[in-house]
Amino acid sequence: MTILRKERFDLPEGIIYLDGNSLGALPKGAIERANDVMAAEWGTSLIRAWNSADWMALPAKVGDRIGRLIGAPAGSVMTGDTLSIKVYQALQAALQMRPKRRVILTDSGNFPSDMYMAQGLIRTLDRDYELRVVEPEAVHAAITEEVAAVMLTHADYRTGRLHDMPSITAAAHAHDAVMIWDLAHSAGALAVDLSALGAEFAVGCTYKYLNGGPGAPAFIYVRPDLISEIAPALAGWMGHDAPFAMEPGYRPAMSIERMRVGTPAIVQLAILDAALDVWEDVDMHALRDASLVLSGLFIDEVERRCPSLELASPREGSRRGSQVSFAFEHGYAAMQALIDHGVIGDFRAPDIMRFGFTPLYLDEADVVQAAETLGAVINQDLWRHAKYQTRSLVT
Amino acid sequence: MTILRKERFDLPEGIIYLDGNSLGALPKGAIERANDVMAAEWGTSLIRAWNSADWMALPAKVGDRIGRLIGAPAGSVMTGDTLSIKVYQALQAALQMRPKRRVILTDSGNFPSDMYMAQGLIRTLDRDYELRVVEPEAVHAAITEEVAAVMLTHADYRTGRLHDMPSITAAAHAHDAVMIWDLAHSAGALAVDLSALGAEFAVGCTYKYLNGGPGAPAFIYVRPDLISEIAPALAGWMGHDAPFAMEPGYRPAMSIERMRVGTPAIVQLAILDAALDVWEDVDMHALRDASLVLSGLFIDEVERRCPSLELASPREGSRRGSQVSFAFEHGYAAMQALIDHGVIGDFRAPDIMRFGFTPLYLDEADVVQAAETLGAVINQDLWRHAKYQTRSLVT
Repeated sequence: MTILRKERFDLPEGIIYLDGNSLGALPKGAIERANDVMAAEWGTSLIRAWNSADWMALPAKVGDRIGRLIGAPAGSVMTGDTLSIKVYQALQAALQMRPKRRVILTDSGNFPSDMYMAQGLIRTLDRDYELRVVEPEAVHAAITEEVAAVMLTHADYRTGRLHDMPSITAAAHAHDAVMIWDLAHSAGALAVDLSALGAEFAVGCTYKYLNGGPGAPAFIYVRPDLISEIAPALAGWMGHDAPFAMEPGYRPAMSIERMRVGTPAIVQLAILDAALDVWEDVDMHALRDASLVLSGLFIDEVERRCPSLELASPREGSRRGSQVSFAFEHGYAAMQALIDHGVIGDFRAPDIMRFGFTPLYLDEADVVQAAETLGAVINQDLWRHAKYQTRSLVT
Repeated sequence: MTILRKERFDLPEGIIYLDGNSLGALPKGAIERANDVMAAEWGTSLIRAWNSADWMALPAKVGDRIGRLIGAPAGSVMTGDTLSIKVYQALQAALQMRPKRRVILTDSGNFPSDMYMAQGLIRTLDRDYELRVVEPEAVHAAITEEVAAVMLTHADYRTGRLHDMPSITAAAHAHDAVMIWDLAHSAGALAVDLSALGAEFAVGCTYKYLNGGPGAPAFIYVRPDLISEIAPALAGWMGHDAPFAMEPGYRPAMSIERMRVGTPAIVQLAILDAALDVWEDVDMHALRDASLVLSGLFIDEVERRCPSLELASPREGSRRGSQVSFAFEHGYAAMQALIDHGVIGDFRAPDIMRFGFTPLYLDEADVVQAAETLGAVINQDLWRHAKYQTRSLVT
């Protein structure tokens, strides 16, 4: 069965979209589902929809659907909040599980918000915790008995460089550290098998490869044997064992429900649920194969045309996520010019032109055409006409 | 100008809705706005919509619109996340502002999730903090120099009993305690003037009286002179001074933006923004007057018909929010029967039948008809036919 299913998306005419790693495309059916939730459920059933449409069960139901794509068993993934909040939940639980240890280990390739959340947690705890940041290549050697939690993003958001999940997880466990994986650029992009991995926690967002829409809910995975050990810091009523008993004291649910916090964003969850319909029969290994064909082809086609661009992603497919990045001094201007010519990628400071590959709605002809357009922008210096030549970072 | 504007809502035929204090009705225009965000912005502009549709500015823009309704100046209200998360942010900041004090004072009328979040924060801090819970009438006397923060919900979710915000805030300040008000049942229901009040923090949700839809984003108000003092625990990248500089260290924005955490729920924010259009020309004092007329009329009409129901809300209008509650032994069954007869209220354990009054889409004829129906349910023992006679609290 082919992976390509462009007919399941509403893609704008005349655009080649290579930024599904930032915000996935609009799946067909998502608007209808939003309308249905708003008109038939909210508008007509009003408060009764919490029962009649089973809104209360939606976060776990959607979590299970994501679980299938990342190798997590039913009942181990909960959706809600934002990825930053889910990072905080995982980190706080990890520190609690290793009360005598004081180091959170991460790498300089981690997404800034993950580091910021760790910094915020440490500042709040006001004890001698340390966020230790090493280079990606130095992670293995930095895992010691001091480390409470190893927190890494699987695929580097700038370069797509992959960490080797099994070996790092094994190293963390060999030193009795808790392993937290951020799957922001992996869920829906790579074949991840959390059950086989044995990591304690994974978190991720759903508005990239999973196409859940802008601000779609995040998710958190907790290894099933650990769920009942967690005493949530973010002890919201939706994670209570009996939310509507309105007890004065918090008693966490005896399931993944305890990772819920407040009232779920029902409309966004329903849109995400509709977006997941597209994934029903997708084999993640076949998707990964298709992704590597597309990204490899893009590297070849761009390098052949643009010797002034320097590949910033791993050349070896097995070490590369579902994106390709090129460093170029005038990258910001070049990306603007490229977008003006109908090929949408994005830019990450200081000089990274970033291109994401989403095999559900991108084919080889798109990739070749994108490379041709990029070649014209670079070789004909079209970027010199871009409105902004550099990005103002103070906004 | 009249407050009533039923024509601005899509209300189901044959229903009298007295539960807008739990989930507000669907405003006209909200579905169109959601469609526009999804089709034109997400679907067509894709990632570019963050700039072209100014999604990045939406949380603050919507915050300012809520600010007008609660007497908060521009730049002091931020939307996002859930109310529970906003409670956590306010509490953590308050404890940080009073580092030598160890008591969070609240009352038994507070909403459970507010207490749970305090318990979760205290457990995480793992020091000698105490959540001190007193009866609502005992709050004044319990404000001492030990108290770091007084955290109260203005209107009791079960009875609608109001706290006197000015006198409690003044008492808190007389003892140098930080004041946090939860406006869940006040925003869009009462005339609140945060600027005059001088409280340090206020939080609230937007899916009740503000009609933002199920799971609509919450809000937090920070007194403007304090914003730059807060070192957020939930230090997400959206609250960073330069989110896209991707700096390794967290530097909070020098504005209310620092209360942001992760990527905002754009679709739900846009729906809320559309819902706030209805409020553009609403005078909050006139709304409060209309609310008291409706709730007073309901009390009269119900008491005249149903001597077996005991008023659980304050009889005096100035002490009552925008809801009326009656205690009735068979309240759960009676509420089911009432809903079956077209009048929607809700039930709160152990025996509270709760009715909310939303003058934007409810008039005196509705109130009289609702009381007549309730009279029939009670006096003809219709509740004995309800499917469930008591609510199972272990779900």
